[in-house]
Amino acid sequence: MRTTQELLRAAAGAKRALALCGTEQKNRALLAAAASLRAAAGEILAQNAKDLAAARGQIPDTMLDRLALTEERVEGMAAGLEAVAALPDPVGRLLEERSLANGLALQKIAVPMGTVAIIYESRPNVTADAAALAVKSGNACVLRGGKEAFGSNLAVARALRRGLAAAGLPEDAVCLVEDTSRASAAELMTANGLVDLLIPRGGAGLIRACIQQATVPCIQTGTGICHVYVDAAADPAMALDILDNAKTSRPSVCNAAEVCLVHREIAPAFLPRMKARLVDERAAKGLVPVQLRLCSEAAAIIPGEGAGPDDFDTEFLDYILAVKVVGSLEEAMAHIAAHSTGHSEAIVTRNEAAAAAFAAGVDSAAVYINASTRFTDGGEFGLGCEMGISTQKLHARGPMGLAELTSYKYILRGAGQTR
Amino acid sequence: MRTTQELLRAAAGAKRALALCGTEQKNRALLAAAASLRAAAGEILAQNAKDLAAARGQIPDTMLDRLALTEERVEGMAAGLEAVAALPDPVGRLLEERSLANGLALQKIAVPMGTVAIIYESRPNVTADAAALAVKSGNACVLRGGKEAFGSNLAVARALRRGLAAAGLPEDAVCLVEDTSRASAAELMTANGLVDLLIPRGGAGLIRACIQQATVPCIQTGTGICHVYVDAAADPAMALDILDNAKTSRPSVCNAAEVCLVHREIAPAFLPRMKARLVDERAAKGLVPVQLRLCSEAAAIIPGEGAGPDDFDTEFLDYILAVKVVGSLEEAMAHIAAHSTGHSEAIVTRNEAAAAAFAAGVDSAAVYINASTRFTDGGEFGLGCEMGISTQKLHARGPMGLAELTSYKYILRGAGQTR
Repeated sequence: MRTTQELLRAAAGAKRALALCGTEQKNRALLAAAASLRAAAGEILAQNAKDLAAARGQIPDTMLDRLALTEERVEGMAAGLEAVAALPDPVGRLLEERSLANGLALQKIAVPMGTVAIIYESRPNVTADAAALAVKSGNACVLRGGKEAFGSNLAVARALRRGLAAAGLPEDAVCLVEDTSRASAAELMTANGLVDLLIPRGGAGLIRACIQQATVPCIQTGTGICHVYVDAAADPAMALDILDNAKTSRPSVCNAAEVCLVHREIAPAFLPRMKARLVDERAAKGLVPVQLRLCSEAAAIIPGEGAGPDDFDTEFLDYILAVKVVGSLEEAMAHIAAHSTGHSEAIVTRNEAAAAAFAAGVDSAAVYINASTRFTDGGEFGLGCEMGISTQKLHARGPMGLAELTSYKYILRGAGQTR
Repeated sequence: MRTTQELLRAAAGAKRALALCGTEQKNRALLAAAASLRAAAGEILAQNAKDLAAARGQIPDTMLDRLALTEERVEGMAAGLEAVAALPDPVGRLLEERSLANGLALQKIAVPMGTVAIIYESRPNVTADAAALAVKSGNACVLRGGKEAFGSNLAVARALRRGLAAAGLPEDAVCLVEDTSRASAAELMTANGLVDLLIPRGGAGLIRACIQQATVPCIQTGTGICHVYVDAAADPAMALDILDNAKTSRPSVCNAAEVCLVHREIAPAFLPRMKARLVDERAAKGLVPVQLRLCSEAAAIIPGEGAGPDDFDTEFLDYILAVKVVGSLEEAMAHIAAHSTGHSEAIVTRNEAAAAAFAAGVDSAAVYINASTRFTDGGEFGLGCEMGISTQKLHARGPMGLAELTSYKYILRGAGQTR
């Protein structure tokens, strides 16, 4: 077993070689890693069965499901590696080129970050996904998964490393942290000089811990208190479709809506239809009905639970929707400014001026006009993949793909210039 | 007097209005601020005289000089505001535009960061410079200067605020922190949700404190252990000019060279000329001679003090140069990887392959081929201005101009799309 410090130093050794790798070599390594993963499927599933047996009764069933691997899921990881191999190389892009007044020829070129550390929770497929994105973007990665998935993660990481080595890449380009205690997470958060970028992928508690403790550059990801604002000029049928989709298509993900703001003019007509769609019709179909948490004005129009003081500041990740009536577009935007996590917000309106004001005035990573918030996703945005969704404004905002895993440097050529 | 919390909330109130300001209005405000600064020159100089009187004997003479304002320096600040007004607006740039497979029309648009907090040390002109860059990039700013410059900073900030107000901008777009104790710096570093970007501008101690304590997004700036590598194939006369310029033209700045690496093949011929140029000729001209700190191999060729264990990891900011003989380009790059702060490095060579390998392999913000490291500067890079020089890889690297003070958001227009 290597200590976390030893792994970080090994990754630092690998990152220099990796940064200089050409596209062909990185792609060959990803394909070799995919083949190695398929060949190791038996070993991976055996380790996963042990992890599952140990975790049963210790963690909730939903987490057990996230932990469980099947042949299909292993194949999905391998196919994911191949898909990343097929994406364009983000490294080496010429971002700017110009001659300076002093005669220097300046080029601004995309380069890898260096070592990317990723702290994640139960799903073992993150091990393969994150490693693929890191390698393709020329970064070494240090992966720190949850303890309940450790055996599975180790089997996946070993298979990936064999693939990299077979293609002539340093296997330490992908390092799995073997200490799954809190101490190792804290070590990654404070490994200045050895971690160039830290990406936490997990629940609000993990993100908060990283914000509080990290001294290395870190990207805040994934908390989404997303709003759908139904404007006075909304097409009500479209608003219902969008709201239904944003709330119920997958309530556990960060781009699901948690709050519906409804303009006062449309509220008396819209709210009863909303309740019928999200509550009554779902119940009639045997689907989980949405629990509505209503502001007093909405509660005077439709029946439902009153909203408590925290309901407009909670990421429910469940079939729960907070509902508030607002008097104007400005009030809707002010509410969003005060309560949003800056992830994704939508307006439903036929009024172009309202749409433009909402798009300009709402300060979130993704602002939708007449579409569901659920589209905030690397795949949907055409990035081909995703390392997470940034809810901060520094460096990357919204879905992070390969380009967001690069930095840049300036190369300046002269003929002896001095200043 | 307003507390730092009150100022942060006032800035948060101003930032929404500022983000929506058009280019014309921001430019008018910057010109009004310049006029207001000129009109307040008497008051500013009077406050500065009080600051200087109080600081005399308390701080070193070099810092007194940085603290001192003159009519010319006030005019310089006003002219700086006008120069920033003349630069292109970084906000609203269309960074990407495409249609997604699902029919959504995606636009990626540059937006302000929000509130930028800047912690700086003695020079009162930073108050005007930083405010100008923040306002032009649509950001509210919270400025926290050093206590010895407080009266000067307050007079400058008041003049700027009067100018903004005269042009119809919220005056809280520029807030000066009135508490100059360490507590207020710590408050800015941990004001999550109220500070969108923290930029420390000052010495290594300040930068270190921010890295250790900041929980808000922060950019590491300015520490420069810059290297000049004199390759075996260097033109010796060019190498001398570049090294002399990089070391002696302004030793106190971060883009000055601190270390010279010399290839073993050229060392016996080059080192005596280097000593003649940097030591003997300077002394003969009555200039401060450079103190050389030599590795043992260099010390066998020329006389000079031996390098101590820390000399290759120190930002001297003085007429001191650490000198090391290396056996190869690879050894030079490995030394830089181990000891550089990632700011600026130069190679002097006539060998194209060596130049290309150095440019590709050295992981610093700016890599020079046959030019002085002193060019790493926003003005020299054609950015028109500079908020500091980032030595980290997240978000911005190298000189930070207006574009580096923006983030982006995605605006997606649909026709009722759901996922």
